Amino acid sequence: VHKFVLNLITEWRKLALPFAEDTVVVAVSGGADSLALLLGIDDLRTRKKLALRIVAAHFNHKLRGRESDADEEFVKQTAAERGFELAVGHGTIEKSGNLEQNARNARYEFLHSTAQNLKAGWVLTAHTMNDQAETFLLNLIRGSGIDGLSGMRPVRELREREKGRKGDGETERSISPSPLLPFSLSPPLLVRPLLRWARREDTENFCRESGVEFRYDTMNEDMSFKRVRVRKMLLPMLKEFNPKIIETLALTAELMQKSVPPASAGGTDAVERSTPIPEELTIKDLQTLDPGTLHETIRSWLKHRRASLRSVGLKHIEAIEQLIHSKKSGRTVELPGSGLVRKQNGRLRFENIKVD
Amino acid sequence: VHKFVLNLITEWRKLALPFAEDTVVVAVSGGADSLALLLGIDDLRTRKKLALRIVAAHFNHKLRGRESDADEEFVKQTAAERGFELAVGHGTIEKSGNLEQNARNARYEFLHSTAQNLKAGWVLTAHTMNDQAETFLLNLIRGSGIDGLSGMRPVRELREREKGRKGDGETERSISPSPLLPFSLSPPLLVRPLLRWARREDTENFCRESGVEFRYDTMNEDMSFKRVRVRKMLLPMLKEFNPKIIETLALTAELMQKSVPPASAGGTDAVERSTPIPEELTIKDLQTLDPGTLHETIRSWLKHRRASLRSVGLKHIEAIEQLIHSKKSGRTVELPGSGLVRKQNGRLRFENIKVD
Repeated sequence: VHKFVLNLITEWRKLALPFAEDTVVVAVSGGADSLALLLGIDDLRTRKKLALRIVAAHFNHKLRGRESDADEEFVKQTAAERGFELAVGHGTIEKSGNLEQNARNARYEFLHSTAQNLKAGWVLTAHTMNDQAETFLLNLIRGSGIDGLSGMRPVRELREREKGRKGDGETERSISPSPLLPFSLSPPLLVRPLLRWARREDTENFCRESGVEFRYDTMNEDMSFKRVRVRKMLLPMLKEFNPKIIETLALTAELMQKSVPPASAGGTDAVERSTPIPEELTIKDLQTLDPGTLHETIRSWLKHRRASLRSVGLKHIEAIEQLIHSKKSGRTVELPGSGLVRKQNGRLRFENIKVD
Repeated sequence: VHKFVLNLITEWRKLALPFAEDTVVVAVSGGADSLALLLGIDDLRTRKKLALRIVAAHFNHKLRGRESDADEEFVKQTAAERGFELAVGHGTIEKSGNLEQNARNARYEFLHSTAQNLKAGWVLTAHTMNDQAETFLLNLIRGSGIDGLSGMRPVRELREREKGRKGDGETERSISPSPLLPFSLSPPLLVRPLLRWARREDTENFCRESGVEFRYDTMNEDMSFKRVRVRKMLLPMLKEFNPKIIETLALTAELMQKSVPPASAGGTDAVERSTPIPEELTIKDLQTLDPGTLHETIRSWLKHRRASLRSVGLKHIEAIEQLIHSKKSGRTVELPGSGLVRKQNGRLRFENIKVD
């Protein structure tokens, strides 16, 4: 048995994934990561370790013309050869705004409806330790506070993402105090069985050693994406300091998930509901807070008033802190995308208007 | 009044530093940071905001020959011009082992004895947000777990450092659950009044605008030091992603100090004492733990058995985890500097022998 397959089944057990009877959807782009996951599952199925209904799901974003169609063709062929059922979705992605985020939203919507149609309780994605390390760095650079450093969780509710709380480099809400015990989560669950142990080189090697040519996504070379620059420039430099930097960052994110109390990690719904969030904040009160508490107070207030902290970075929170500490009145801080915070009559108020 | 001085007095108040009667020691190397701190205090004293006995303290490490002596001469002259008392120490630093760490230990010993001789309750050092950002990154790269990401604290007991728990890139123990309320700490306190707001450019500009030429330490250019490489290579790259990366990382460390519960942050003494640390760990028990808990369990056990986690990195903890999961018996993991962990009869034992 290949080491990749051994690691996969070990993690499968730890994540409390099912072994028989249930239906599991596996998101497959055709790249090395998702292909390795599918091949690993195929191996386990052949060895009778798994007796599940497995449905591969491919979403064609139609963003790269013929290349996208060739990916789809490749996944169709691979699924057929290995005897997997396949669901294919096609999308027209809005090119305005954050392209990566729009593509992701469309893809997750497709995965969600696929899971619902199939009454599948689990959707698996092939995020690796490399993805986790990249997410950690993107969040660190962006200044997303403590939450962001927890990175992606191995198990969460799939529909969380649809609420629009998640963007590239954004944070995932802690749903249950123990993310590894998904008893309190409602299906379909999004599970990432490679996240805590597989590196990109492991998935590539496993594909090669299985004799399967995986697809390359040319967008992974496009340096206009911050994530690509993190992967191609920042991580190689960090590797000079620590050859095991991927593992180190991924483990740090994992430790953070366990160590950060729910309240500051974005909070479980229960925690959030137990503290009423005021409509306006009194500046005098805010001025008595120490910097860290002030920062978290503003973040948490804004999150509720604005419904999400999407695209809100450290610089916006800092601008609001300056409002609080400056003497002049009537000033505002505009937030990216939509909304502004206004200082008036000794209070801060959030106004949900479109800012251009 | 210069903005630097306004920021200094604001932070002075927040850190509950004294305004009159007491004695305060200020560590002065002659570089921009410590000079700016001394000049800021001089300004406040001239304006009658402070009525303290201020003693500048300079430690000549004698590591850079004439350059070191010129630094000493410069500090002597500056202190005399500004009417500050001055304490000077000379050291012979052991060149074996970690030079930076040996130098730091000698310097802190000097500061401690100076404070004791003067019955001073406070020793101020001029660490800036840049130092905090560098420490954060060094700890992140090293994989020092959650503790390291809390970085330096603005207030702590000076003698903590003497216990040998702190090395470059190591972590500071959380002494009190609220590091900003030093009521439970015993003097002399080490206080860093620039840590939470001043950037290196602020100290350099304040020196220049005060018409004072600060000294340059040529060791700050020596790329054989990891910290210098972080400053000269890694931070400039991160700045391309986020121009305010120094502030972002420093604030992240600060938020971490407030958000990480004492138990995983290294623990207050009280918390640590309430949980007896076993002499040996049973491997069967360890095997039932999830990766994050296992990691923290090993770290915390080792910290107590070995008296410190100095130089212990992620790779050592991982090697111990492999001991736990491998079938072979009688294997050991050697730790850097001293000590090893031995697996025998289904248990892990720490042996405090010198390893070469």
